[in-house]
Amino acid sequence: MLSNAEQVKVGIVGGSGYTGVELLRLLSLHPLVQVKAITSRADQGKKVGVVFPNLRKFLTDLTFSSPDTAELNDCDLVFFATPHAVAHNYAANLLEKGIKVIDLSADFRIKDVDLWQKWYQTQHAAPHLLSEAVYGLVELNREQIKSARLIAVPGCYPTATTLGLLPLLANKVADLRFIADCKSGVSGAGRKANVGSLFAESSDSISAYAVSGHRHLPEIECTLSMVANNKVDLTFVPHLTPMLRGIHATLYAQINVEVNLQQLYEQYYRDEFFVDVLPQGMYPQTRNVRGSNHCQIAVCQSADGKNSVILSVIDNLVKGAAGQAVQNMNLCCGFAENTGLQQVPLLP
Amino acid sequence: MLSNAEQVKVGIVGGSGYTGVELLRLLSLHPLVQVKAITSRADQGKKVGVVFPNLRKFLTDLTFSSPDTAELNDCDLVFFATPHAVAHNYAANLLEKGIKVIDLSADFRIKDVDLWQKWYQTQHAAPHLLSEAVYGLVELNREQIKSARLIAVPGCYPTATTLGLLPLLANKVADLRFIADCKSGVSGAGRKANVGSLFAESSDSISAYAVSGHRHLPEIECTLSMVANNKVDLTFVPHLTPMLRGIHATLYAQINVEVNLQQLYEQYYRDEFFVDVLPQGMYPQTRNVRGSNHCQIAVCQSADGKNSVILSVIDNLVKGAAGQAVQNMNLCCGFAENTGLQQVPLLP
Amino acid sequence: MLSNAEQVKVGIVGGSGYTGVELLRLLSLHPLVQVKAITSRADQGKKVGVVFPNLRKFLTDLTFSSPDTAELNDCDLVFFATPHAVAHNYAANLLEKGIKVIDLSADFRIKDVDLWQKWYQTQHAAPHLLSEAVYGLVELNREQIKSARLIAVPGCYPTATTLGLLPLLANKVADLRFIADCKSGVSGAGRKANVGSLFAESSDSISAYAVSGHRHLPEIECTLSMVANNKVDLTFVPHLTPMLRGIHATLYAQINVEVNLQQLYEQYYRDEFFVDVLPQGMYPQTRNVRGSNHCQIAVCQSADGKNSVILSVIDNLVKGAAGQAVQNMNLCCGFAENTGLQQVPLLP
Amino acid sequence: MLSNAEQVKVGIVGGSGYTGVELLRLLSLHPLVQVKAITSRADQGKKVGVVFPNLRKFLTDLTFSSPDTAELNDCDLVFFATPHAVAHNYAANLLEKGIKVIDLSADFRIKDVDLWQKWYQTQHAAPHLLSEAVYGLVELNREQIKSARLIAVPGCYPTATTLGLLPLLANKVADLRFIADCKSGVSGAGRKANVGSLFAESSDSISAYAVSGHRHLPEIECTLSMVANNKVDLTFVPHLTPMLRGIHATLYAQINVEVNLQQLYEQYYRDEFFVDVLPQGMYPQTRNVRGSNHCQIAVCQSADGKNSVILSVIDNLVKGAAGQAVQNMNLCCGFAENTGLQQVPLLP
Repeated sequence: MLSNAEQVKVGIVGGSGYTGVELLRLLSLHPLVQVKAITSRADQGKKVGVVFPNLRKFLTDLTFSSPDTAELNDCDLVFFATPHAVAHNYAANLLEKGIKVIDLSADFRIKDVDLWQKWYQTQHAAPHLLSEAVYGLVELNREQIKSARLIAVPGCYPTATTLGLLPLLANKVADLRFIADCKSGVSGAGRKANVGSLFAESSDSISAYAVSGHRHLPEIECTLSMVANNKVDLTFVPHLTPMLRGIHATLYAQINVEVNLQQLYEQYYRDEFFVDVLPQGMYPQTRNVRGSNHCQIAVCQSADGKNSVILSVIDNLVKGAAGQAVQNMNLCCGFAENTGLQQVPLLP
Repeated sequence: MLSNAEQVKVGIVGGSGYTGVELLRLLSLHPLVQVKAITSRADQGKKVGVVFPNLRKFLTDLTFSSPDTAELNDCDLVFFATPHAVAHNYAANLLEKGIKVIDLSADFRIKDVDLWQKWYQTQHAAPHLLSEAVYGLVELNREQIKSARLIAVPGCYPTATTLGLLPLLANKVADLRFIADCKSGVSGAGRKANVGSLFAESSDSISAYAVSGHRHLPEIECTLSMVANNKVDLTFVPHLTPMLRGIHATLYAQINVEVNLQQLYEQYYRDEFFVDVLPQGMYPQTRNVRGSNHCQIAVCQSADGKNSVILSVIDNLVKGAAGQAVQNMNLCCGFAENTGLQQVPLLP
Repeated sequence: MLSNAEQVKVGIVGGSGYTGVELLRLLSLHPLVQVKAITSRADQGKKVGVVFPNLRKFLTDLTFSSPDTAELNDCDLVFFATPHAVAHNYAANLLEKGIKVIDLSADFRIKDVDLWQKWYQTQHAAPHLLSEAVYGLVELNREQIKSARLIAVPGCYPTATTLGLLPLLANKVADLRFIADCKSGVSGAGRKANVGSLFAESSDSISAYAVSGHRHLPEIECTLSMVANNKVDLTFVPHLTPMLRGIHATLYAQINVEVNLQQLYEQYYRDEFFVDVLPQGMYPQTRNVRGSNHCQIAVCQSADGKNSVILSVIDNLVKGAAGQAVQNMNLCCGFAENTGLQQVPLLP
Repeated sequence: MLSNAEQVKVGIVGGSGYTGVELLRLLSLHPLVQVKAITSRADQGKKVGVVFPNLRKFLTDLTFSSPDTAELNDCDLVFFATPHAVAHNYAANLLEKGIKVIDLSADFRIKDVDLWQKWYQTQHAAPHLLSEAVYGLVELNREQIKSARLIAVPGCYPTATTLGLLPLLANKVADLRFIADCKSGVSGAGRKANVGSLFAESSDSISAYAVSGHRHLPEIECTLSMVANNKVDLTFVPHLTPMLRGIHATLYAQINVEVNLQQLYEQYYRDEFFVDVLPQGMYPQTRNVRGSNHCQIAVCQSADGKNSVILSVIDNLVKGAAGQAVQNMNLCCGFAENTGLQQVPLLP
């Protein structure tokens, strides 16, 4: 382990939610990182282990502080694990001080400020930063991330969906009309007191929601269209599933050239540490990646080759949030990409 | 079915919680009841089927009204499915109008007003009614219930625990020091937005709570001591269990006479429709009574006869709340005790 | 209630699985039915309440018998709740004796014997009965069912999917290429000891299975093609979901005429007791129909009218199996269609 | 990391169950260990990642072999993750070759061979090894473990219960009659196809089992009696709880001297890395230790000091099995006790 002086000093803004505790879980054992500050208006003054009892034996010196304190200024890098429409107010100030910003919220994911403002119903406070912000899907933007100052970590649904469709788009083998039928664990709804997320409301039942339009839809469409260099049409239906973690994206595409998709996917992700294309006939379960930064993908092609079903699973809190944020941090800090991210998935 | 004129007209105050929807489920098919009014400050003006989509095809004319409207005055009987410390403000007024009151909250369960005020931290508004109120554990107070105007329906933990211990106390075969280790489904926490009841907080985990003192402790101790005609000492530890419904009470008692407990329990509950003493060696699961008003009890006695473990399971929302309320209503309205309460438990 | 003499006498073959216990739950309170016999090779000699402890207070005289005993011959109607490829061996013999047969397995669902034999890898023992057998989707074949001797109850996935797509096909408003992304509770896998259905394998996780071809695919395609009077192309992906009961079918269709789907669905199912088209903007949860014979359907149409997403939920053991079987029995015995099927869904 | 030559070479017998996959999870990232062999009669010839897809990116060269192959002879240490009554047949042979044995089954836990044979209904094949075998509860037998050749890893219930009661016994402050009301996740039932462990049988329900006598009872009584130097009387009731992992032991004891239990426990476990005594008023949840080797304990003492309730939680597959086995390995191989065991619990 490095001496304290050599470690990167990081801060976390808004650390009392599920992406916050997951960042702490990953960073507490990261050999090249020192967590200097974590803020939370609701929990300020409390030890981390009081709010999150799984962390009682880790980061024992860390106490939630007010987001207004100056501790963030001593950091080399700050994560925002805040709800949407917070980070855009603070990013510019931190960047000016030479502090890198990795935002896990949606504030810098969409380049088109009008589109963002339409979906998030807020005036964007830092539109001048949108062009600089790098969309932190490492498997797509690895080189730009290495030199980025401001990174927008993709949403959970966009990560699972985009990783599942990228090989089709990059190889131009499919029609540009896709269906993404996605199933998410309830932790995706956050650690907010709300009736719909109660155990007694969401256990032992499944339901679709936001069918007429979910905020992740424009994010996915923008990325896919950018890769395709053409407008992509996506029907996206998210489902609330009675499990803690995990996203299972079931993706439907029409293939319009003769191609062996299994080979194409294996080839495309050959060098990726975190993307695992399963052998023909094996289907992923979300638990296969529980607690890890991995994405498992299966490719199913009809006998005539024209219909395809792509299955893509991630842990929404890791590859879909905190783990992907750390993966981005590793790159922009010059560390090996998988440093601190080698957790074995927890099964059962 | 009776004509409308012959049915009992009932109202429900505070119908937007889980005991409310469960009362509606049971009453919607009750042949001798007509639900005339249901109140809810939060949901007033909404159709019942909008708030509770399982009821869309039932009680289709029923709309939540304000608790201040006069509709309750047209009822023969009013259920309070409100949080604690509401019914005590309204009961006297209804009783004066000749309307019977069945309170599912704790307001009239404890005879000692000081004890009640200590545990509920509220000034009791109708202490003069406490002596009249009948504790609605039918298996204990059947005759009094038949002529009661004001009934206090027992809590869920008290029902499972008391039914499990009654035969020991009534037959004076055990020491008066008991342990009740109780496990409850999360619906017991109610339909309130609160972080601890979120799926992501309570799923796939179990925990004890309120070990130093739960409000149901004095209620159970009062009933048991009354039956024993002596002070009973109870250690009561409730646990939040990752399931929707159900209470499993594991009860520990020291037997101080030579007795065959299996026979004693079978004899004691021989004529009870809703209490089922399982044969030797068979243990209950909470799902065995899911959705029904039944209580299943198993009796385990050590080889030397001195240690005993009693297992008692109920559905917390039925025998532990709404079903027991209907059972009380049937008696005080002169109906057969199990009218409208013959649902077969849902397994699996 | 009728006197015993007036009730229909029914038998159940293969009653120790989940459709068996569900038939018993529904029939035990059916006012016009007397369950005379239930067979199970594994459990013969055991009381029903020993195998299924939820039934201890119901059908108390009923004991599992060997399938070889003559008791079935005294019945007016026999249900087969057996695995596939059992009923086809016994149906002819019962029909000859004037006993009606309602088969919950797949043996008589597909008219094309070669197609059946390909998917079920068995020689069909009664191909001459295939043309007579009526496919028991009541909302499609009500009149034929009334006079049927042999009824093939649809599978769970086919029921949810077909009810969801029928209005589109009957009105010829959609392209004949559909996607059915279906999520099923684990009870759909049956009460067989198998590693994949263990709690520790299937809890807190979701996964697709049988993507390359599920036995319900030809059944659905046959029905839809028959209604469309044209070959329908269906991509069908089932998912194992960590819940006890329920099927959620998410159906994707392209609309090719100008039409208001909401109105079209409401109109189509206007007179159906068990199909409930939800108002615009309300989405179903599987728990809304838990334990009941209802199907809830929501219709989502894109702004330009061309894309549609249909959500259809049922309880796989009720409308997807035992409840639908009873609905069929009611019709072919001349009873009101919903007799004994008015259970209110259990929520939470 | 050490070069291969410096790492300890380990083998695992019976690796296709849940303790097997958990050993692999922990050992795959252990810096001082090389897994040389894993045997499984059922899965021989299969890659580890085929049987356990969470391990696809780890231990990629490892293939299940037959237990009869000689690969185990090249190991320095062999773990038995077999069912009971297997290891006793093989241990002597390995020990003779100088190979250490860590047995996760019950074969060497009980010193009294007659008692063992009574509970496990098998002739013990190596009674001469029973006196040498060290009971691997590190917090009790740390020094003996350091020099042991043969270690019997405690069962999951015994670990949670014994850690919870040790401070009372070691300090002689309680009566020797205890109650242990224990709740276990379903993974404790193993990865065997059996109806009672199906999701559809064990989800959304809780039940007691083996009330009249569980195999862990004599193991716990032996350890406690040894520590107390006196016969201890334990009433032990295990419950099957609808969660994947975790044991919650709720322990009841009568205190017979004036003592502050909170201080006593904090003092007793002051230097233990893996035992965490919670501050007064904080209760553990099983999820607080999910995936980790930690034990969290809370102490609740009645106002008069005489009644006490001790809450003790572990992850049954880690501190209750594989993690504790690695903790033992670390000690007997001369490594730091927590090497490879610093996983942060996964919450939510």
